Amino acid sequence: MALLVQKFGGTSVGSIERIEAVAERVIKARQQGHQIVVVVSAMAGDTNRLLGLARQIDEVPTQRELDVLLSAGEQVTIALLAMALNKRGFNAISLIADQVAIRTDNAFNNANIIQVETEKLETLLGEGNIVVVAGFQGRDSENNITTLGRGGSDTTAVAIAGALKADECQIFTDVDGVYSTDPRVVADARRLPSIHFDDMTSMARHGAKVLQLQSVEYANHHKVPLRVLSSFEDGEGTLVNFEPSNTEGAVGVAIKSQQVLTTVAQPLVAVQERLKLFGLAAWCYAGIDDSTYIVTASDDLARLKLALDKVEVAQEHVTTLSVIGVEQADVVEKIAATLAESSLAIYQQQWSARCLSLLIDGQDQQLAVSIIHKQFVVEPESLDNRRLLAVS
Amino acid sequence: MALLVQKFGGTSVGSIERIEAVAERVIKARQQGHQIVVVVSAMAGDTNRLLGLARQIDEVPTQRELDVLLSAGEQVTIALLAMALNKRGFNAISLIADQVAIRTDNAFNNANIIQVETEKLETLLGEGNIVVVAGFQGRDSENNITTLGRGGSDTTAVAIAGALKADECQIFTDVDGVYSTDPRVVADARRLPSIHFDDMTSMARHGAKVLQLQSVEYANHHKVPLRVLSSFEDGEGTLVNFEPSNTEGAVGVAIKSQQVLTTVAQPLVAVQERLKLFGLAAWCYAGIDDSTYIVTASDDLARLKLALDKVEVAQEHVTTLSVIGVEQADVVEKIAATLAESSLAIYQQQWSARCLSLLIDGQDQQLAVSIIHKQFVVEPESLDNRRLLAVS
Repeated sequence: MALLVQKFGGTSVGSIERIEAVAERVIKARQQGHQIVVVVSAMAGDTNRLLGLARQIDEVPTQRELDVLLSAGEQVTIALLAMALNKRGFNAISLIADQVAIRTDNAFNNANIIQVETEKLETLLGEGNIVVVAGFQGRDSENNITTLGRGGSDTTAVAIAGALKADECQIFTDVDGVYSTDPRVVADARRLPSIHFDDMTSMARHGAKVLQLQSVEYANHHKVPLRVLSSFEDGEGTLVNFEPSNTEGAVGVAIKSQQVLTTVAQPLVAVQERLKLFGLAAWCYAGIDDSTYIVTASDDLARLKLALDKVEVAQEHVTTLSVIGVEQADVVEKIAATLAESSLAIYQQQWSARCLSLLIDGQDQQLAVSIIHKQFVVEPESLDNRRLLAVS
Repeated sequence: MALLVQKFGGTSVGSIERIEAVAERVIKARQQGHQIVVVVSAMAGDTNRLLGLARQIDEVPTQRELDVLLSAGEQVTIALLAMALNKRGFNAISLIADQVAIRTDNAFNNANIIQVETEKLETLLGEGNIVVVAGFQGRDSENNITTLGRGGSDTTAVAIAGALKADECQIFTDVDGVYSTDPRVVADARRLPSIHFDDMTSMARHGAKVLQLQSVEYANHHKVPLRVLSSFEDGEGTLVNFEPSNTEGAVGVAIKSQQVLTTVAQPLVAVQERLKLFGLAAWCYAGIDDSTYIVTASDDLARLKLALDKVEVAQEHVTTLSVIGVEQADVVEKIAATLAESSLAIYQQQWSARCLSLLIDGQDQQLAVSIIHKQFVVEPESLDNRRLLAVS
């Protein structure tokens, strides 16, 4: 018997039929003798519906009240899922944030979990209940309702799993695991049976959307094994844990597309401080004459121009490819050589532990990721050969 | 400066435009220097939408989870109203049941308020906030979410007013006060400037829908002056308090239509016990040979047949008229004589303090209520004349 925390996102609970399918999935695990805590998001579309109501009143609604409003969405889902489980003869009890209790700081709309109390959860589990918890929400020290911001329900699930010392935190999603690269871009992308937390963190940081960076970091920090599974089909998914990756080559290639390359006549350190102040994520590197290059999401360009004066767009469509899980420093040269064979240019590169990021032209994305994925992930023996050749 | 509790129902907050109109109303009172607690229901239609989702899962959803589901509706409204107040430059804070806290028993779907804590409310009011509270919901002693059943938001408002010793509990609704009879039935029905709690209780018990019986009884018991006002237009409304009614004749005529008259071959006491067991409200009276007549809402006929064997329908469409606020026992004869003049029959009558109920044919309803209302409410001098004649 294991203690499992299972998290289902908005698409997985987006209709009554889907909620009933989730109930069946949960019951399957329960029937295997496991204790289950289920964390759910609001039904897909519901959060946008509520946001739409708020914006009719105020383009920038009060942050505190926005959290009161949005947290109603998860409350609907937990009640419906608990009903569906009860209907099928299984004891289930739903809990909102204060009932658990899930304590956060008071950063409305973007709160951080400080503590998850376990007494109520453990009592209910001990009585044989499936416990259904509202994701995305918490309470601050003054008992105000807070929400956790993007990917919040994942973080709720991980925090509960950590507090309960659960055997596994299972994130159910619309894909059946973590892939070596985006399957919509590269046809022979392959599901990874397992991945080390460090590599998963790099994947999430550099563009893989299957797991939110914050929840991966939280799980890593609290030593909670994560498993990514499909809501819609059976399978083993991908286990994120602390076992070394047993791949010969790279683990995968993360893609950040729809980026823009800009330049500004200010030194690197000053730019970095300024972006931090504005909460802007960007890849910055020094240009000539104390200028700085900034790679950021095209969507963030307007905010970038607020943060810095005289931002000039150097290239409108660039892509960042990050090759993850490569130990060898010399792989940089090999990749550069491989792309050069196909006349593809690397504008900039950045190396940090086990992760090589490459800035390329957006038009080259499809070809570049296909080549790198094939030669360094799928056929790593070619990598080994090249290394041997290089070393010899 | 007064402390006012203002309650707005589902129709009054049924759209963003209406919520904004409610904000303007609340602000008007605030600008007069009053401290304000606002209690709101779910947006009209939202409760039915949520119920519809639940029923897709289970025709009879778990009671506990139904309360979790339905209480989400009020949470949406309080957040939107607080946003609208904030947008207009007024400090407003929304609270759900546990934040107040509103304590109830554990009768899910039909809970009773045990206690309203005042500390949080008083602190927020003292800081100059308009406090917006979710109606209809509470928490039981184990912190489960409960709902109060029909008219629950009225009861929430009254309970909060009682706990805070508010100067007035103002119930905003789609009519501009309590009327002497149903204005849709009788054109010259008139708004009552004030009404005594005892008479208001009779009005609510015998068919007037403007206030829920439970909240009137609660306000009466806790000595909370109630005022019924229109959400849509200015006016003084109707004050429900403990001043004697200063009308010469009757206060009003309450109408219960769409009733059915049935008979069953069991003695009165046995029938009454049985109906109590099934929670069925009915007017029962003894027939001949140990049979009993039962007057009940046509909608309750199916449940009546579950409660009692061999229920026979004696008359499909009957109406109960209740003449409220008449002290004189001899008015019974006068009313009977008046109706007889128009060839209208009274099947049965029941007298209790200041309230005379008459069972008539449903087809006679319009004519009977018009006659009684005209002669005993609008022109009570005729009543006095008749009394003088009868006494002389």
